[in-house]
Amino acid sequence: MAEPSTKIIPLLKDELDIVIPTIRNLDFLEMWRPFFEPYHLIIVQDGDPSKTIKVPEGFDYELYNRNDINRVLGPKASCISFKDSACRCFGFLVSKKKYIFTIDDDCFVAKDPSGKYINALEQHIKNVLTPSTPFFFNTLYDPYREGADFVRGYPFSLRGGAPTAVSHGLWLNIPDYDAPTQLVKPLERNTRYVDAVLTIPKGTLFPMCGMNLAFNRELIGPAMYFGLMGDGQPIGRYDDMWAGWCTKVICDHLGLGVKTGLPYIWHSKASNPFVNLKKEYKGIFWQEELIPFFRSAVLPKECTTVQECYIELSKQVRAKLGQLDPYFNKLADAMLIWIEAWEELNPPADQPIVPAK
Amino acid sequence: MAEPSTKIIPLLKDELDIVIPTIRNLDFLEMWRPFFEPYHLIIVQDGDPSKTIKVPEGFDYELYNRNDINRVLGPKASCISFKDSACRCFGFLVSKKKYIFTIDDDCFVAKDPSGKYINALEQHIKNVLTPSTPFFFNTLYDPYREGADFVRGYPFSLRGGAPTAVSHGLWLNIPDYDAPTQLVKPLERNTRYVDAVLTIPKGTLFPMCGMNLAFNRELIGPAMYFGLMGDGQPIGRYDDMWAGWCTKVICDHLGLGVKTGLPYIWHSKASNPFVNLKKEYKGIFWQEELIPFFRSAVLPKECTTVQECYIELSKQVRAKLGQLDPYFNKLADAMLIWIEAWEELNPPADQPIVPAK
Repeated sequence: MAEPSTKIIPLLKDELDIVIPTIRNLDFLEMWRPFFEPYHLIIVQDGDPSKTIKVPEGFDYELYNRNDINRVLGPKASCISFKDSACRCFGFLVSKKKYIFTIDDDCFVAKDPSGKYINALEQHIKNVLTPSTPFFFNTLYDPYREGADFVRGYPFSLRGGAPTAVSHGLWLNIPDYDAPTQLVKPLERNTRYVDAVLTIPKGTLFPMCGMNLAFNRELIGPAMYFGLMGDGQPIGRYDDMWAGWCTKVICDHLGLGVKTGLPYIWHSKASNPFVNLKKEYKGIFWQEELIPFFRSAVLPKECTTVQECYIELSKQVRAKLGQLDPYFNKLADAMLIWIEAWEELNPPADQPIVPAK
Repeated sequence: MAEPSTKIIPLLKDELDIVIPTIRNLDFLEMWRPFFEPYHLIIVQDGDPSKTIKVPEGFDYELYNRNDINRVLGPKASCISFKDSACRCFGFLVSKKKYIFTIDDDCFVAKDPSGKYINALEQHIKNVLTPSTPFFFNTLYDPYREGADFVRGYPFSLRGGAPTAVSHGLWLNIPDYDAPTQLVKPLERNTRYVDAVLTIPKGTLFPMCGMNLAFNRELIGPAMYFGLMGDGQPIGRYDDMWAGWCTKVICDHLGLGVKTGLPYIWHSKASNPFVNLKKEYKGIFWQEELIPFFRSAVLPKECTTVQECYIELSKQVRAKLGQLDPYFNKLADAMLIWIEAWEELNPPADQPIVPAK
């Protein structure tokens, strides 16, 4: 078990929500208790809403099942996936906090090489509170970390960095492989602890995994839409990838940073590769078209907010990916509905929530 | 001391030269003996050519002082810097091998976290013999390393990677900081061993340090020109940076990869920050212009060899940087002389060295 909770300083306690998508009792929270107990949890129950999800005592949480999602969003609930962890983005929508940390319920507390339990949340918070360096690569990794700095040859004008929008954490034990790789390497485990945080350079796409992820909701929230996956859709397990590609293109356009590396969590169990293959196979084919699409996507200067960028991206999805499969027209519609839902639940602070009349 | 040499398998023994620029006796080689003894050394003696440099017994080497450089290159020797470690590139020119490893004479064998001496050369060789991944970021770092692979969401069409041209190693103990950072943080030491090798993405520039560097001479050799530095020049300590920026732009154009990370060497002694400041101050100012120049440099499709790319780059240096300082016109000239020298000493294999008449 982790160290006593008295040792944990709950950074950003009133500014961060933990979002957990699940279909089962949240026993995994016991191991996270010293780290998560000070925070508010938003649990998004997937699948059968009549099932009761047990949450260990002492946690402060709100729980939404499918009935709740339908009630809160009405017809706009169509943009929230069912029977896929993509439903987690509903939690991002209803949060009122500045920061989100989201984690899967098969992820446990990992140990660093000295055997000490890793406070993943604390590392994510450090990552999002310090700048990123998307415009030039620093060979000693995160220059803002203690004991590190910018190396010789790093332009001084770029040393202020960029605001960090996303902190992407990694996984020890079961790596986040696709079904073909799982099938080919059933016994591979990630045992390498890489003691680094680094910024993914501007113009470079990456595969964002939703298992262990934090972000600044104020800076990038509306781009963190996990798409249409699972029940009734031709694809699954590409929810976080979709969100990551959209997010990275928008971060690059707006001058925001994305970090990856520490913290690690312990990913306990590989999902079934045969089931995964069925969910993924269209994605494996489509991603060959999606990567060039996102790599060449250009957002016009006029798009200065995440919402504007996202709406523009949905237009480009329709125009350029609609011919790949009609699914992408449906997805483009859902992207717009998501933004409408976001605006409805997150009205600008200087605007009355209820129209003046 | 390192392990007995019997344990070391000399990979690429007949295909790799070790290039060492120096002004003093090479006692530092004693510690490297088990690792370097099987290889051929090219020692480039900087400064006073009448001084005798002692090389520990048992090493296979050739040594060039300034008189030798003048003799070999004649008037073209003007492109080789004097009183600056930039002179090391003369060693790249006269080598006949496929791979180069270059190291400074104040760098010693580092230990990994388990206390084992690191065979830096072996790691560099692994790096250059496996592909790079410049077109998409892999969050588990080098996917070709044992125990790692491409993660979910990594396009399958890109998993073949790109040929690796450069392996950039790092430094424990004294980090490679510029003079201002040295002055501000005189006591900072790099103690963090980051167990990773990663590809610097296409389109991203980085500060390449020449202290601990390997490259494939056949793939990228002619771009590894360390510029005009030191004696008679307005700038020093930007030799490796210049080579790195040119190299990265050309690698990106030709679809070649650049890796950074492992191996570490132990950098023993910080150079004098006051002396460094004098050498660097123009570079610190100029790099603010150089980075945007290299970032926006576009090479035409017609440039399909490193030499063609480099000649084109020299034209762009003259056209766009000449107005920044007349030094850059001189540098553009030197870049052309360097290519002439390269062609002279490295004639294409299928061409007779002496013209048929």
